[in-house]
Amino acid sequence: MAYNLLKGKRGIIFGALNEQSIAWKAAVRAHEEGARLVLTNTPVALRLGTLNGLAEQTGALLVPADASSVEDLQALVAKAQEHFGGKIDFVLHSVAMSMNLRKGRPYEAANYDFFGKTLDISALSFHKLLQVLYERDAMAEWGSVVAMTYIAAQRAFEGYNDMADAKALLESICRSFGVIYGRRKRVRINCVSQSPTLTTAGQGIAGMTEMFGKADAISPLGNASADDCADYLVALFSDLTRHVTMQTLYHDGGYSMTGII
Amino acid sequence: MAYNLLKGKRGIIFGALNEQSIAWKAAVRAHEEGARLVLTNTPVALRLGTLNGLAEQTGALLVPADASSVEDLQALVAKAQEHFGGKIDFVLHSVAMSMNLRKGRPYEAANYDFFGKTLDISALSFHKLLQVLYERDAMAEWGSVVAMTYIAAQRAFEGYNDMADAKALLESICRSFGVIYGRRKRVRINCVSQSPTLTTAGQGIAGMTEMFGKADAISPLGNASADDCADYLVALFSDLTRHVTMQTLYHDGGYSMTGII
Amino acid sequence: MAYNLLKGKRGIIFGALNEQSIAWKAAVRAHEEGARLVLTNTPVALRLGTLNGLAEQTGALLVPADASSVEDLQALVAKAQEHFGGKIDFVLHSVAMSMNLRKGRPYEAANYDFFGKTLDISALSFHKLLQVLYERDAMAEWGSVVAMTYIAAQRAFEGYNDMADAKALLESICRSFGVIYGRRKRVRINCVSQSPTLTTAGQGIAGMTEMFGKADAISPLGNASADDCADYLVALFSDLTRHVTMQTLYHDGGYSMTGII
Amino acid sequence: MAYNLLKGKRGIIFGALNEQSIAWKAAVRAHEEGARLVLTNTPVALRLGTLNGLAEQTGALLVPADASSVEDLQALVAKAQEHFGGKIDFVLHSVAMSMNLRKGRPYEAANYDFFGKTLDISALSFHKLLQVLYERDAMAEWGSVVAMTYIAAQRAFEGYNDMADAKALLESICRSFGVIYGRRKRVRINCVSQSPTLTTAGQGIAGMTEMFGKADAISPLGNASADDCADYLVALFSDLTRHVTMQTLYHDGGYSMTGII
Repeated sequence: MAYNLLKGKRGIIFGALNEQSIAWKAAVRAHEEGARLVLTNTPVALRLGTLNGLAEQTGALLVPADASSVEDLQALVAKAQEHFGGKIDFVLHSVAMSMNLRKGRPYEAANYDFFGKTLDISALSFHKLLQVLYERDAMAEWGSVVAMTYIAAQRAFEGYNDMADAKALLESICRSFGVIYGRRKRVRINCVSQSPTLTTAGQGIAGMTEMFGKADAISPLGNASADDCADYLVALFSDLTRHVTMQTLYHDGGYSMTGII
Repeated sequence: MAYNLLKGKRGIIFGALNEQSIAWKAAVRAHEEGARLVLTNTPVALRLGTLNGLAEQTGALLVPADASSVEDLQALVAKAQEHFGGKIDFVLHSVAMSMNLRKGRPYEAANYDFFGKTLDISALSFHKLLQVLYERDAMAEWGSVVAMTYIAAQRAFEGYNDMADAKALLESICRSFGVIYGRRKRVRINCVSQSPTLTTAGQGIAGMTEMFGKADAISPLGNASADDCADYLVALFSDLTRHVTMQTLYHDGGYSMTGII
Repeated sequence: MAYNLLKGKRGIIFGALNEQSIAWKAAVRAHEEGARLVLTNTPVALRLGTLNGLAEQTGALLVPADASSVEDLQALVAKAQEHFGGKIDFVLHSVAMSMNLRKGRPYEAANYDFFGKTLDISALSFHKLLQVLYERDAMAEWGSVVAMTYIAAQRAFEGYNDMADAKALLESICRSFGVIYGRRKRVRINCVSQSPTLTTAGQGIAGMTEMFGKADAISPLGNASADDCADYLVALFSDLTRHVTMQTLYHDGGYSMTGII
Repeated sequence: MAYNLLKGKRGIIFGALNEQSIAWKAAVRAHEEGARLVLTNTPVALRLGTLNGLAEQTGALLVPADASSVEDLQALVAKAQEHFGGKIDFVLHSVAMSMNLRKGRPYEAANYDFFGKTLDISALSFHKLLQVLYERDAMAEWGSVVAMTYIAAQRAFEGYNDMADAKALLESICRSFGVIYGRRKRVRINCVSQSPTLTTAGQGIAGMTEMFGKADAISPLGNASADDCADYLVALFSDLTRHVTMQTLYHDGGYSMTGII
């Protein structure tokens, strides 16, 4: 079901990898709703080739960028503006990586090079993106920037490792930059705290399948799927939510507000 | 701009009084988006006659009901189901009244009959509404119930008096009923924490104009207006937000997340 | 171990019933720390006679009072001031009752007379107490008032019924009155959100034993006991915590900040 | 007034610089309460010589350590254990530095080398400290670790720059490590969110004097001073608060819960 909610809008979507990705589904839905898109991921991810199909399906421009590189982000935003012939209306940041998680280093025996990289790729990349957008005045008035987060940013989940801390940092950047970007340019910035989702990234987390099942059982409406999330993101990119900013928005079937019974 | 977001959906809207009301604007927007409506307010409010125009404009059925009366709510829901020929997809609860506020009784010299009525009309009415809907199994699956709240529920504002406590109670009822209604019937329940709004109700609050101005200055995007709120409510009634439940959602231009500088 | 933390301080303790009660343990600990005490509970509870032993042990004056009766509270505070020969330094409100819980009425089929009483006894009684103290200017400067609450005020626990909503209301009253009492009289007001505790009151809650066990397993430090809580309350009554006010303080072994793993 | 609350306890205090420092006052109060101490700060800070007086006054061992160096932390903890002849009962982390702040770089024009250092010194240093303590099993059972934070971690204050994000990260580390250290070793970890304080560090923040004054006016009890904070820290190091963990504890005269009126 499409509503033309994003007709005439132009957006950049980070982090689509394959059909399971939230970012992939968001791109498909945004396209259905009338948006023009630029898709981006790391050069390595682009070389896999799967994103070509998505770019074709959504008529999107594909631009490689390392989200932790200011230079890459500058080039990306420049290309996007050129491609669109104007400002950007929405951006989705769905970027996260932890080597401590991947290598199975427990949180209490962290490798600090890895920890620094987790923060840089998963959280500081969001600040860099916002700073590049801000410096270039690249966002349209009432534009919407959304970053994906997880409730581990607010409550301790052992399995989520240093990614939990990176998400807390991300949510803080959302608030800290939100006050500035909102006041000066009327751009809104929010985080979506999504149910555990069985994406490729999600599956890398130790005990993810168990975490997914427990969250599904606890959440009164069950886990929100990647498809549900794409719908929600469309609403957040649209003009219907213009005065929502600096929030962590729980899209989780009620999990965050449910005690254990 | 209309998107057909509520095409085929059927909703009850409480609390429209005149063109300034959030509920009035929500009714207009929901109608534009394709919804069929039942409007309700107290018998006294209906006798003023201004609601007739809204009912005409939106093709809505007008049903008087005292929101604190279980019997009235039962009759209302029965009439709505009969009118719609089926279940209800969304409900807006925008009902609040404090005699302590109206009579200028300071919070620390509360009249407890008034306090009890504030809680009954402004918060327990929401439980009664949900209980009537639940008992009659009147909500469609994935239906959406929204109640209007204010940040005084979470932080102390002297001027807001016992209404602050009523809103905290309302938000708790949203969570407590949300877990039950979500789990058993897949109905979602949320509160929208709206910027101070210069409605007739809002203007009754001592120092409201000052509170409005300060909130507008502090909020990075400025206060959200009643029109903005109507847009946001449309998103919350729509299928785009199906997995959001039990939340207090700040629709306030960023006020809630902004410190004083 | 005693430290003389409350030497010369004078306090009123509501809600001791028997040796399991948090309020009972708080009275014993406060006495050990040098405080002079007035103990109060309902006339019915006093007639059971068990409180006589506590009064003797702690050298306390025993005064019957229905916490939901303004007249009783006025008489209580007057007697306490007379007994102490001066102002009051601390008060513990540990009062809660739900007939819906006792009678096994599910939350979604609430009896509204019961619901009103739950709010009146468990939450409005706190406002009444504060209002009586304030009107009589009965608290010493930097005095400390504490009410017992539970995390169900913030997250939905089906088993906790309308008591959850009463606790949310209680926590709001703590904030709303806290701003006034703090600003004008330098009196602090806080809520302690305690682990499930196997008191007589706690055991009345359906599924309490299971809830207790799960919370104990989830909490990194295990559940806080009534004895632990008495220690914590001593700290909150003492001069060491003078600038803590309007807070809900989690005394729960970390439960509130732990996700499910 | 001393109570012997920390009699026989052994603690490490980071971050004392001069008599204005919260850490300085905490050391004096902990000593008064009977604690044995190790004081630490950077080699540069120690060379200033002012800490010698504090060490003498409190009978403390002075050990230089760069809190962002794992090696330095390992040496520090080893020396402390040797000095104490046993395990450590409490630790205060009061360490923060932002070059973006110092150099007046606005948040939206951040230098990312500076940003990384802000995170490393102000937040990752806390993880490193905890990891070193954990690996060496250096904390006594029921030991208490506290880090100083500020409400900018939760709400946006433009003037606080990237330090706000570092504090959000710090609070997340408190939760993430708290669940592990609590469960396995019964060690509690908390953050104290303190009023703006006119310390040497505080005075480095742009607009600090104004921020201080506004917070003082808004807080119902006024700002908590460094002396008040030392009292509160003593309570948190003592056995009275054993079941409080993973919390951000607002010691702010009620500021955090007060809306603008």
